[in-house]
Amino acid sequence: MQTIDTLINARWVIPVEPDGLTLNHHSIAVHGGKIVEVLPTNDAAKKYHATETVDLKTHAVIPGLVNAHTHAAMSLFRGLADDLPLMDWLNNHIWPAEAKWVSPDFVRDGTELAIAEMLKSGTTCFSDMYFFPDVTARVCHDAGMRACIGLIMIDFPSAWAQNADEYLHKGLKLHDELRNSELISTAFAPHAPYTVSDAPFEKIRMYADELDIPIHMHVHETAQEVEASVKQHGMRPLARLAKLGLLGPRLIAVHMTQLLPEEIKLLAQDNVSVVHCPESNLKLASGFCPVHALTKAGVNVALGTDGAASNNNLDMLEEIRIAALLAKGASGDATAVPAHTALRMATLNGAKALGIEARTGSLTAGKAADITAIDLSAISSQPVYDPVSQIVYTATRDQVSDVWVNGKHLLAKHQLTGMDEAALREKAIEWHGKIKAS
Amino acid sequence: MQTIDTLINARWVIPVEPDGLTLNHHSIAVHGGKIVEVLPTNDAAKKYHATETVDLKTHAVIPGLVNAHTHAAMSLFRGLADDLPLMDWLNNHIWPAEAKWVSPDFVRDGTELAIAEMLKSGTTCFSDMYFFPDVTARVCHDAGMRACIGLIMIDFPSAWAQNADEYLHKGLKLHDELRNSELISTAFAPHAPYTVSDAPFEKIRMYADELDIPIHMHVHETAQEVEASVKQHGMRPLARLAKLGLLGPRLIAVHMTQLLPEEIKLLAQDNVSVVHCPESNLKLASGFCPVHALTKAGVNVALGTDGAASNNNLDMLEEIRIAALLAKGASGDATAVPAHTALRMATLNGAKALGIEARTGSLTAGKAADITAIDLSAISSQPVYDPVSQIVYTATRDQVSDVWVNGKHLLAKHQLTGMDEAALREKAIEWHGKIKAS
Repeated sequence: MQTIDTLINARWVIPVEPDGLTLNHHSIAVHGGKIVEVLPTNDAAKKYHATETVDLKTHAVIPGLVNAHTHAAMSLFRGLADDLPLMDWLNNHIWPAEAKWVSPDFVRDGTELAIAEMLKSGTTCFSDMYFFPDVTARVCHDAGMRACIGLIMIDFPSAWAQNADEYLHKGLKLHDELRNSELISTAFAPHAPYTVSDAPFEKIRMYADELDIPIHMHVHETAQEVEASVKQHGMRPLARLAKLGLLGPRLIAVHMTQLLPEEIKLLAQDNVSVVHCPESNLKLASGFCPVHALTKAGVNVALGTDGAASNNNLDMLEEIRIAALLAKGASGDATAVPAHTALRMATLNGAKALGIEARTGSLTAGKAADITAIDLSAISSQPVYDPVSQIVYTATRDQVSDVWVNGKHLLAKHQLTGMDEAALREKAIEWHGKIKAS
Repeated sequence: MQTIDTLINARWVIPVEPDGLTLNHHSIAVHGGKIVEVLPTNDAAKKYHATETVDLKTHAVIPGLVNAHTHAAMSLFRGLADDLPLMDWLNNHIWPAEAKWVSPDFVRDGTELAIAEMLKSGTTCFSDMYFFPDVTARVCHDAGMRACIGLIMIDFPSAWAQNADEYLHKGLKLHDELRNSELISTAFAPHAPYTVSDAPFEKIRMYADELDIPIHMHVHETAQEVEASVKQHGMRPLARLAKLGLLGPRLIAVHMTQLLPEEIKLLAQDNVSVVHCPESNLKLASGFCPVHALTKAGVNVALGTDGAASNNNLDMLEEIRIAALLAKGASGDATAVPAHTALRMATLNGAKALGIEARTGSLTAGKAADITAIDLSAISSQPVYDPVSQIVYTATRDQVSDVWVNGKHLLAKHQLTGMDEAALREKAIEWHGKIKAS
């Protein structure tokens, strides 16, 4: 008998790698924060002696969900301004609120609220883009949450930095502090082509190559953005990024609702990752990301919730469902993004986009034990003809029962083990009082 | 002090009528199955003495949700066949499964499962179209669920009836049996223009006028349906229905993804109700119902989940959210279907479509006490700037805590009071075993 930390016995294990596989009555052996083996439960009982055994008799176990694009701290602005067009929403509501309220305390409290919500809905890793990324990193570290922290860059001064040099300097410093973390990686996070000028982009390209980290950016979110670029630069934003040498496997291009067939070909050739945020794109009427065409062209498409101010939740199960549904509606092809593909987008493809697929994104021996269990005994998921179909098309976040990040049992029987929900709620109510009164 | 059955004290009451109103710290006085008064909680304590008082300190209370189009018993086929085009899905999966399995027992067990799911997610009334409507009606009566039962008609023989005369005869008999029910109303439910010929349509028109009941039908679900009608009848289905005298306030036209501007004008003129089923339309890649244009033209638009085989749940909160989001995406206008409008579609507009708006659909004195409470203290709904926005854009069904139908407390603190969930699950598993093995 081999002694291990944790043995998870599940009705179904869906490893995501290899693609399309569903294992019945399998177990996951976890030790030292890593997956040791995925094997039949009968064999596991003979081979492993575990300090903790968790029986999940009616559950499907999947890789922890990867939210590949969010602004976690914006959870405190959830529902502040709805049913408005993007530029009105940004210029007259979100940016003024940020100018007034964003501070290290705001980012700490907002990110804690967001992490609690994400863990309770099965997310084990998120890619963030927001002010005070040092605070976000610290909160993730304390919560045991995996994250890819965006080293932000924008042409405007903010509470975090005054100019391009300061954004860059602070970002590099933070990258250096985090470089040995098992949980937290970094990416450059220039806001968007329309808010970052050529000089900082050139520096980012250089440093991203040197440090070997991704570049996480909003790209082609709206038709107006594309038109404005044609007017100002004489070319579409993607062409400008290509000219600046930014198209390549490091680029994580978020939204991408405006794409020509030749641009899709270019993204595939250059191994650019796309992050699709269907709820945010719908809510802000930004357009439809051509996910079916991107997938057929071989582009790596991941999923993100975007921030809670434009979604209005951080629920990746819902995002998976809407991605699978919307791909069919937008392409007119009911076979587009079938259930297994949708689940892969929300797990392995996310890890690939963030450059951490060696570490997470599938239930594979040697990877970190980032694991989510979903209880399919809920009457709304019955009967179960195919567990992956039930996860994608029926499950809601309340069916997420257990979550492990790096082997730590952060959600156990629906309860957060390391965070105090009542305290988080109180803090959110406090912020609401202040922000509402302003 | 006036003695009443129930007093519900809520943090927020959203009556839906008048439109756009949110009441803080209000109460609903319920007696004899009806709403007696909606008033400030402070005043209610002085005026009413209630047998049961329910305090909902962190909850928003709304009219019970009206699911205006479903096939309840199909819950037993949930996830049987996914990611397929409509005609392949119908011809090669759903219709053969129905031919083999549909029976009074199937309809009883499937409808019970569906009602449990609907109550737990805040739905208090559904409009059904399925075989053995007599069984569906009996199950609703026993469960205390409000429903509009479809008196089905289709050109093909089925386990329920052999020909048009038998469908009609059995429908009229059922209508007669139910005519004094407080809970259950009826509608003619011819399947669709492409599956019902002129003669039965003419009889239905005549009897619908005589009995004063609605006509519930799939119309313009897909582009293929419209093309086939042009080929066969020389006109689009709506034109054929107009010629048959079926356009009018009785008509509940479901799906309507294919609409010309002049057809939208016609629907408004003739007071036709449209039922939008966004998840089903997306999943089967049927097209986009132009909800924003219909709403602007003054058409009454309600919401439905469709059956669980094409959704794959009966969750109206999710349907509201997707309707609000998709209307923005499909119209390119982020102000389309704002939160209050989406909630109205799922409540009062549904009741109007079914012809029962005098009885339900808003929290109005004199109407039945069909009431749903949603707990907004969940961290994923915090903070609360606007409770209606949080219901539409953040809430999931697990936040539905209490449901009353006709004054009966059918869901209390998340528990079904009259149905045995474990037994329902066991039955679903039994059916799964049989259907899967076939």
